[in-house]
Amino acid sequence: MKCRSCRGPAVIELRRHNAGFCGECFLRHCREQVRKAIEEFAMIAEGERVLVAVSGGKDSLALWDLLLDLGYEVDGLYLGLGIGDYSDESHRYARAFAEQRGVRLVEIDLPADVGFDIPTGSARARRVPCSACGLSKRHLFNTAAVDGGYDVVATGHNLDDEAAVLFGNVLRWSTDYLGRQLPVLPATNGFVRKVKPLVRLGERETAAWCVLRGIDYIVEECPMAAGNKHLGYKEALNAIEEQSPGSKHAFYFGFLTRASHLFRPQAHAEQEGLHPCVSCGAPTTGDRCAFCKLVARATAP
Amino acid sequence: MKCRSCRGPAVIELRRHNAGFCGECFLRHCREQVRKAIEEFAMIAEGERVLVAVSGGKDSLALWDLLLDLGYEVDGLYLGLGIGDYSDESHRYARAFAEQRGVRLVEIDLPADVGFDIPTGSARARRVPCSACGLSKRHLFNTAAVDGGYDVVATGHNLDDEAAVLFGNVLRWSTDYLGRQLPVLPATNGFVRKVKPLVRLGERETAAWCVLRGIDYIVEECPMAAGNKHLGYKEALNAIEEQSPGSKHAFYFGFLTRASHLFRPQAHAEQEGLHPCVSCGAPTTGDRCAFCKLVARATAP
Repeated sequence: MKCRSCRGPAVIELRRHNAGFCGECFLRHCREQVRKAIEEFAMIAEGERVLVAVSGGKDSLALWDLLLDLGYEVDGLYLGLGIGDYSDESHRYARAFAEQRGVRLVEIDLPADVGFDIPTGSARARRVPCSACGLSKRHLFNTAAVDGGYDVVATGHNLDDEAAVLFGNVLRWSTDYLGRQLPVLPATNGFVRKVKPLVRLGERETAAWCVLRGIDYIVEECPMAAGNKHLGYKEALNAIEEQSPGSKHAFYFGFLTRASHLFRPQAHAEQEGLHPCVSCGAPTTGDRCAFCKLVARATAP
Repeated sequence: MKCRSCRGPAVIELRRHNAGFCGECFLRHCREQVRKAIEEFAMIAEGERVLVAVSGGKDSLALWDLLLDLGYEVDGLYLGLGIGDYSDESHRYARAFAEQRGVRLVEIDLPADVGFDIPTGSARARRVPCSACGLSKRHLFNTAAVDGGYDVVATGHNLDDEAAVLFGNVLRWSTDYLGRQLPVLPATNGFVRKVKPLVRLGERETAAWCVLRGIDYIVEECPMAAGNKHLGYKEALNAIEEQSPGSKHAFYFGFLTRASHLFRPQAHAEQEGLHPCVSCGAPTTGDRCAFCKLVARATAP
C-alpha cells in the first residue's frame, strides 16, 4: 500500500479514511485533524493559556505534544490518583515527557493534597471507582485551571472514547448527558472552557503518533477500569467499525450535526440553577458540590 | 431455579426479568406482555379486523397464535418472495399453522402476482435484497389490508429486532427514521394502522412460546440476510445485553419515553407531502411510489 499523500511506502493504514500513510504524512494528517477540530469548534483562541490533563497514557501525551507542535502555550497537569504501581508508573511517563521537552507539569496528589486515594476512597464513599475518579478529575482539573489563570482545560478524549460515551448515553437515553456531550463546553460562572481536540483521531492514531514521535507512555489500562461498561461499549462499537469502517465517526459527528441540539434545552435548564458550593466555592446545583460530598465520605474516620 | 409465579420448577430463565418461569406461567407471562403492549400503545380496538404478516418464522407464528389466544379476529397474510427453498419451506409452515387452527391465510406470490422474485429482481433493480424485500413487504401488506377491509396490519417485530433497528438508526442518526420508529404507526390517508405487539418480548421468548405451544416454524434465517448490517447490530447489542441484562429493553423503551418525540417534527413534515402514486394509487411523496419504481426496474426486459 502507498501513502495517500506522497505515494511513498505506507506504514499505517486507516480504514476509516480508506487510505495509507507514510510516517511523515501520517503526522501531518494528525496535526491537520487536530487543527481542524480546534478551528471547527472554536476550542482555543490565539494567546490563550491551555492546561492539558496528562495521565501518562498515549492520548494525553499525544495531545500535549500536538498542541505544543501547533504552537499553543500549554502546560500539563498530572493528578496522582493513588492507584498503586499504575499511578507511580503513569506519573513517571508524564514527568519524563515534561523534562524532555522542558515544559511545565503542574502536579496534584489526591492522597497527599486531598486526603484519599481512589481505591480506598471510592470504597468508603460507596461509589464505583471510575465514577469517583471522574468526579475528582473534573473538579480538580477545573480548580487547578482557575487557580493557575488558564483559559482552557484540554483533555485527551479521542474518537473511540467519545463514541463509546455517546453509545452509553444513548443506550440509557440519558438526555441530560446527551445535551452536554460536546467537544467544547464553554466557560460558565466558575468553570473554565473544556475542550477535546482529539475527537477526530482514533486511539490507533494517537498510539501511532506516540510511536512515531518517540514518546514513551503507559500502555496498561487503569486496573480499576477492567470490566467496566465503558470498555464493553468500546468492544461493541469496534465490532461495528470492523464491519463498516467509518461507523464511529459517522455516529459521533452525525450526533453533533443532527441530534445534539435536540437535547440541549434540558441541559441548559440544569445549568441555570448553579451557585457556589458552601464548602469550596465551585459551582453546583445543591448546597455542597458532589466533590466535597465525596471528600467528606472518602476521608471520614 | 423456581418459577417466579407458582414456585414450581422453572423451565426458562429470563435474565432481563431476573426470573425463571415454568411452562404455564411463561405462557401467561407472554400473553400478559402482549396484552400490555397492545393496551399501552392502543394498538387494536375491540371489534377491529387484524391482518398479521406471517413469514413462517417463530415471531410471526407466535404473534398470530398470541393474538388468536387473546381473542382478536386475525387472518394471516403470507407473501411468497421467491427465495428458493427458503420460501417454499416458510410457506409450508405458514399453511400448516393456518390449517391446524382452521384460520384464514391470505396468500400473495411476488413472482406470480407481481412478476419478480427478490434475488433476481433486487439485482436487476440494483438494490440490496433486504431493502427491495422490505419495500415490497410494506407495500403489499398495506395493499392487501386495504383491499381486504382490515383495520390493522400486525407484524412480528420483537424487542431484539426493534432494538437493532433503533441502534442502526442511531448509529447513522437517521432523524427521519427515528421520528417514525414507533410500535404503532397510525392510519393515515391510504395507509392502515401498523402495529408491533411483540415489542415487549425478546426472540428467545417467541421461540420458547412456539416450542411450548407445539408450533413448527422455519428455523433458518433468510439466506439473503446473511452478513447484513442488521445482524451485526444484533450481535453488538447481544454482547451489551450479556454484560447488563435489561439493556435492550432500557434502550428501546427509554427511546420511546424520553427521546422519540424529539425526532417527531421532522417525520411529520415528510408525511405532509403525501399524495397518490400515479401508477398504483398508494400514498407517496413523489409522482410514482418507490414500489412501482422497483417493479418497473425488477421486471424490465
